[in-house]
Amino acid sequence: MDVPINGSVRDGTHWLAVRVYYEDTDTAGIVYYANYLRFIERGRTELLRHAGIDQFHLMAVPVEDRISFAVRQCTLDYLAPAHLDDALQISTQIDKLGAAYIDMLQAVWRDDKKLLGAKVRVAALNHRGLPTRVPPWMIEKFNEILPLNDQTRPD
Amino acid sequence: MDVPINGSVRDGTHWLAVRVYYEDTDTAGIVYYANYLRFIERGRTELLRHAGIDQFHLMAVPVEDRISFAVRQCTLDYLAPAHLDDALQISTQIDKLGAAYIDMLQAVWRDDKKLLGAKVRVAALNHRGLPTRVPPWMIEKFNEILPLNDQTRPD
Amino acid sequence: MDVPINGSVRDGTHWLAVRVYYEDTDTAGIVYYANYLRFIERGRTELLRHAGIDQFHLMAVPVEDRISFAVRQCTLDYLAPAHLDDALQISTQIDKLGAAYIDMLQAVWRDDKKLLGAKVRVAALNHRGLPTRVPPWMIEKFNEILPLNDQTRPD
Amino acid sequence: MDVPINGSVRDGTHWLAVRVYYEDTDTAGIVYYANYLRFIERGRTELLRHAGIDQFHLMAVPVEDRISFAVRQCTLDYLAPAHLDDALQISTQIDKLGAAYIDMLQAVWRDDKKLLGAKVRVAALNHRGLPTRVPPWMIEKFNEILPLNDQTRPD
Repeated sequence: MDVPINGSVRDGTHWLAVRVYYEDTDTAGIVYYANYLRFIERGRTELLRHAGIDQFHLMAVPVEDRISFAVRQCTLDYLAPAHLDDALQISTQIDKLGAAYIDMLQAVWRDDKKLLGAKVRVAALNHRGLPTRVPPWMIEKFNEILPLNDQTRPD
Repeated sequence: MDVPINGSVRDGTHWLAVRVYYEDTDTAGIVYYANYLRFIERGRTELLRHAGIDQFHLMAVPVEDRISFAVRQCTLDYLAPAHLDDALQISTQIDKLGAAYIDMLQAVWRDDKKLLGAKVRVAALNHRGLPTRVPPWMIEKFNEILPLNDQTRPD
Repeated sequence: MDVPINGSVRDGTHWLAVRVYYEDTDTAGIVYYANYLRFIERGRTELLRHAGIDQFHLMAVPVEDRISFAVRQCTLDYLAPAHLDDALQISTQIDKLGAAYIDMLQAVWRDDKKLLGAKVRVAALNHRGLPTRVPPWMIEKFNEILPLNDQTRPD
Repeated sequence: MDVPINGSVRDGTHWLAVRVYYEDTDTAGIVYYANYLRFIERGRTELLRHAGIDQFHLMAVPVEDRISFAVRQCTLDYLAPAHLDDALQISTQIDKLGAAYIDMLQAVWRDDKKLLGAKVRVAALNHRGLPTRVPPWMIEKFNEILPLNDQTRPD
């Protein structure tokens, strides 16, 4: 498996390769349930990086215009366990660009087998940590890499 | 705060004290979102220990009768952030004892403020990792510490 | 085991109880080697808290007088593995109060068995992140809880 | 940075790219000190994989011939902090192939800056968890990828 470490976008889905190491497993012989949240955050971060929305760009604006993101809700379906050394793929799709949040659909795969499904709502926060609108330049950037269909355009 | 490290049960709710250390936080200055899953698992484990359902008892039966638990579903509402040094309380309630699963309601509190709400479905698995019934001796033990109401008794 | 969650000091040694949960273990059935560093940091943090050197006091001074600590060196001897559900004790002693650093001796125990030995050098940093002297008020506080012998007094 | 996710070997050194995510950082704004041990274990695991010594091969022998590895000693020098989004490189070299252990020299780099230096002794264990000799077929495999000099050949 020889993929870019930042993943790639195909047909509106971002894919990131993740290897399972000892650090990810527990004494039950499987990936510890909290660690899938680490995996899917890597996927969201790399999707943002692909869209040109990384720490560098988020910080390159006056403090009072700074946007950050925080997970507000998360629904996780654990379908099958992952194990040490598994070569996993994290898929990330934008489900809906809300006015002040982004809903993402994510999954963890081993080959064609879906091990975890996740729905994640990420809220946009201003520099005071309060909910704020996703700024137009960001929506623009999402559009460039992920051809949003009508359902995913902001209201 | 001088509580037993294993927590205690009051009115059908298990409470566990958890301190926030550097390991739990991230560069945003708050507890990293995956780490709440570590906190609430500690709560579930200590509730099981109070009920007399610990590793020792789970392993003290013939291999073919061994029961283990695995999280199947998890819904998380992130309401407010926790910070370094916070003295948190984890509450754990049994919402429903199903035939082959246990639904739990959990929350993370700082004083009277609810920081996270979680609904967790834990499946009972047999020694082959397949879904199995929660055995009667376990239901008995839950009954002893947590006076289940009608809603929470198994079907 | 019914100990205060912040540990206690006996004869110049700080002791903290730590329970091993699933999050701490790996697929080899033992505590993952990096996680002992989480355990011993909890010990150091609680020793500081006992000495009255917590985040609250560290932050309650003008920014330019703020001191923080960072691990500079760490030598770890893994003597025997810890397992799920183990009730561990973390011991922390001040080995030497240097001008700009504190050397600590730490260990992880299960009953009388030493599982890990650690020597940790923690540097004092000023608000710019540069090495600085451990301030007199802090040395004073260490003296109150841990009767330093001649070897451990700063040069 | 477009490197294979398993890293590569150049001049007797294995290099692995690691990205810093939120999960790795703490509220001090830097990578949490225990997490470098996660990074360097990834480096060691990928070096073993390159040498053809992975879980698959380790398990593809009769139980009584199975070899596993456990860290016995670890000396860490924290030279400079890593931050969110940093693109790090993990270097891993075999320092000495002992009869029953392997000494490795590892480091974490950001470009040409060394952030962490580590000396790690890994012991070979038999299926009972007792120290055992590194088997000849493994030494053979190390030789193929890492041209051991005289110092690193087993005694």
